[in-house]
Amino acid sequence: MTYDVVILGAGPGGSRAALEAAAAGLRVAIVDKGSFGGTCLNWGCIPTKLLLGGTAAHPLLEVQKKLKTAQGTIDFDLTALQARKTRFINGTRQALEKQLRQAGIEVITGTARLAGPGHVEVVDGEGTRELAARNVIVATGSVPASFPGLAPDGEAVLDSTALLDVTEVPDSLIIVGGGAIGLEMGDFFSRLGTAITIVEGLDRLAPTEDPEIGQTLGKLLKREGWAIHTGRRVASLSTVEGKAQLRFEDGTELVADKALMAVGRRPATAGLGLETAGATLLGAGWVETNDHLLAAPGLYAIGDVNGRTLLAHAADHQARFVISHIASGSASSASGYPAPVMPSCIYGHTEVMRAGATVAELVASGHDVHVSTSQLIANPIAQAYGTTGGFIRVLWVEGQVRGISAVGHGVSHLVTLATVIVSQRWRWEDVHGIIFAHPTLDEALEAALLAPSQKV
Amino acid sequence: MTYDVVILGAGPGGSRAALEAAAAGLRVAIVDKGSFGGTCLNWGCIPTKLLLGGTAAHPLLEVQKKLKTAQGTIDFDLTALQARKTRFINGTRQALEKQLRQAGIEVITGTARLAGPGHVEVVDGEGTRELAARNVIVATGSVPASFPGLAPDGEAVLDSTALLDVTEVPDSLIIVGGGAIGLEMGDFFSRLGTAITIVEGLDRLAPTEDPEIGQTLGKLLKREGWAIHTGRRVASLSTVEGKAQLRFEDGTELVADKALMAVGRRPATAGLGLETAGATLLGAGWVETNDHLLAAPGLYAIGDVNGRTLLAHAADHQARFVISHIASGSASSASGYPAPVMPSCIYGHTEVMRAGATVAELVASGHDVHVSTSQLIANPIAQAYGTTGGFIRVLWVEGQVRGISAVGHGVSHLVTLATVIVSQRWRWEDVHGIIFAHPTLDEALEAALLAPSQKV
Repeated sequence: MTYDVVILGAGPGGSRAALEAAAAGLRVAIVDKGSFGGTCLNWGCIPTKLLLGGTAAHPLLEVQKKLKTAQGTIDFDLTALQARKTRFINGTRQALEKQLRQAGIEVITGTARLAGPGHVEVVDGEGTRELAARNVIVATGSVPASFPGLAPDGEAVLDSTALLDVTEVPDSLIIVGGGAIGLEMGDFFSRLGTAITIVEGLDRLAPTEDPEIGQTLGKLLKREGWAIHTGRRVASLSTVEGKAQLRFEDGTELVADKALMAVGRRPATAGLGLETAGATLLGAGWVETNDHLLAAPGLYAIGDVNGRTLLAHAADHQARFVISHIASGSASSASGYPAPVMPSCIYGHTEVMRAGATVAELVASGHDVHVSTSQLIANPIAQAYGTTGGFIRVLWVEGQVRGISAVGHGVSHLVTLATVIVSQRWRWEDVHGIIFAHPTLDEALEAALLAPSQKV
Repeated sequence: MTYDVVILGAGPGGSRAALEAAAAGLRVAIVDKGSFGGTCLNWGCIPTKLLLGGTAAHPLLEVQKKLKTAQGTIDFDLTALQARKTRFINGTRQALEKQLRQAGIEVITGTARLAGPGHVEVVDGEGTRELAARNVIVATGSVPASFPGLAPDGEAVLDSTALLDVTEVPDSLIIVGGGAIGLEMGDFFSRLGTAITIVEGLDRLAPTEDPEIGQTLGKLLKREGWAIHTGRRVASLSTVEGKAQLRFEDGTELVADKALMAVGRRPATAGLGLETAGATLLGAGWVETNDHLLAAPGLYAIGDVNGRTLLAHAADHQARFVISHIASGSASSASGYPAPVMPSCIYGHTEVMRAGATVAELVASGHDVHVSTSQLIANPIAQAYGTTGGFIRVLWVEGQVRGISAVGHGVSHLVTLATVIVSQRWRWEDVHGIIFAHPTLDEALEAALLAPSQKV
């Protein structure tokens, strides 16, 4: 028997591909080691959101205490938070597996590797077998990256997966890496009383965003008591006498109860035999894909493994494209994978949001860029919460919106609205065609859209 | 000297009209008794949002206490919250007055009435004078409605304006009226420990929304400990021995420390002499307007007074239309005021949001309506906050979105996105063209858009 599609990995990309393929009447098998839902559900977006959501009252109370409008204390029970998180994740994982089976998908818990084009070798509790497939989709995702001298050791130096499961609140935490993972974990532990120190080799936090975003984010977190070291390179990070000890290249040291290594991720492609099916691996093992997300004839790579965008909703979107490509007979004349407007968020009390391009990306494409900005302090909802730091900026090319980014409390709520506006490349008159409800944080986006723009 | 435009009332509608008129090079005067910013800023949307925003930590903590993930107490200082609110409102009011003056607008603090077409009689500290105007815009707004036997007495029976200024937390509060004002005030005082009883003559809370919204809202608020009496008519409400005493028509009674009358609003048009300029007043004094928001030649009425939509952003939008109509020479051939997709929200811990039509409105227009729904419990962000009650529903006519409404925690964040979707009358394929970031509450809206729909 030959499957229409065999999928390696049941994260957001693989699961979506399987469900879409089954809905399209294709014969589908999906192989996963058992962590249905992938990094996002098990060790990524979802557990961090559960921990941040469950503790959201804390920073709001702290703001009011500073304003002297409230007194009080909140004591979180980390064990109970972890238990609730685990319950939710387990339930969702089981529900996903059930959904896959109920859709008529052959669900295999085991490991898989390619043994030539269209041949997938599966090892599970029942032994080894080979699946024949007209199409193979690699969706095995990524794992935390580490570097020599900085590797998590499971003692005081942890990766995000291990830190998500600690049951004792560290008094102090060093975070190496100023991206989403480090920032979100830092925010969570700061609410439990942990002293946070964050270290980023580049010159600012959130370094994939325009510089103004990361600079303001750093200022706001400093005000909340974080120690921030940007533009400093780490020479070593290890457990010394039970504590995490970080040494900078300039010889200075930091010591804390725990350290989190969160310096990016690498593709989970080792040992998959992708080369046997004609795939090319780049750099740390990223799968090279063409315009149709094909790594070789009949071999697609979606989600983190192709290195395009390491976000769950990007994998989901690529999955839909690939199944539609397969279902339509992989017509080579079909148009390639569209570069959609990609939303991204860093969650927490102080958030970062972007839809569309950065200034650097637009300039690199040869565009003249104009920027218009609104400050959150002018917005009544930001005032109402006492969370007035931050801003929203809009990037314009020839009078059309090409990127929207923001930093501040609650700005993740604007991300889909911003995605629609950038996708449709709104002009001024489009903004005037919509009534923005008053009072909303959305009005800060309206204000940014209507503010006078400056050439970058 | 003849003004191009004289505006009565400096609330959201009047102020916007003045600024737009000045920007268009018109000669403008605006007359207000002194409460620049109107009801919205001084006694409406803004003070309620400041009180709700400042106390938002409380219900979030209560949720976690029920989940046994947190312990703690928060004590709000009502005097300090009131002081912060007053400071912000005063500052914003002064900033608005300054902005009007700096735009070259003649700003008059006083009372005004019409004395025939194009003649406005103004009384201020310097006496009485008459202004000649090519166009007059009435934007005097509305005031809380009251009824015989139920009138606020300033003792235990208060209107929303008076309740917004109390400095002692009542142990118990009866709210008459299940609309936005009553619900928001109830939410605020419940956070301070006040026991809330809400009374609504119609069969559900939020009675301007589809029945399912108000029914679910009632269930969620009951779970939070509110006593809810719907479908019961009030015979009398008065202060008896310092307490508020409510008697239902069936003879049963309720007693509480305070009562809030929040049963709607009436237009502030008494004594304005509108009839002298040819206007027709309807019902409680609403100004009848034509397709161009004209009450008579050269006399416009915008905002609450025309009774179309009692919302600040509706007044703002009407102001822009009217000034554009005046600036273009009031060409009678110009198209009339468009019926824009109107967003509305009820704010608080459990919110209500709508953009576009209700089922009843669509059915009344002769449409076949289909409804698709998603429950918030399936959304990971709702799960993260432990606020899983509520849902989002989408109304479809011939495959196009015509209305979106929602009830639950955080749903006000979706209102502008919903407004855009309804304005553009999205179809299924439009939803697929946008990547919804994961995880966001926005995905619950995506799920509602993509859910199978049922004929109403």
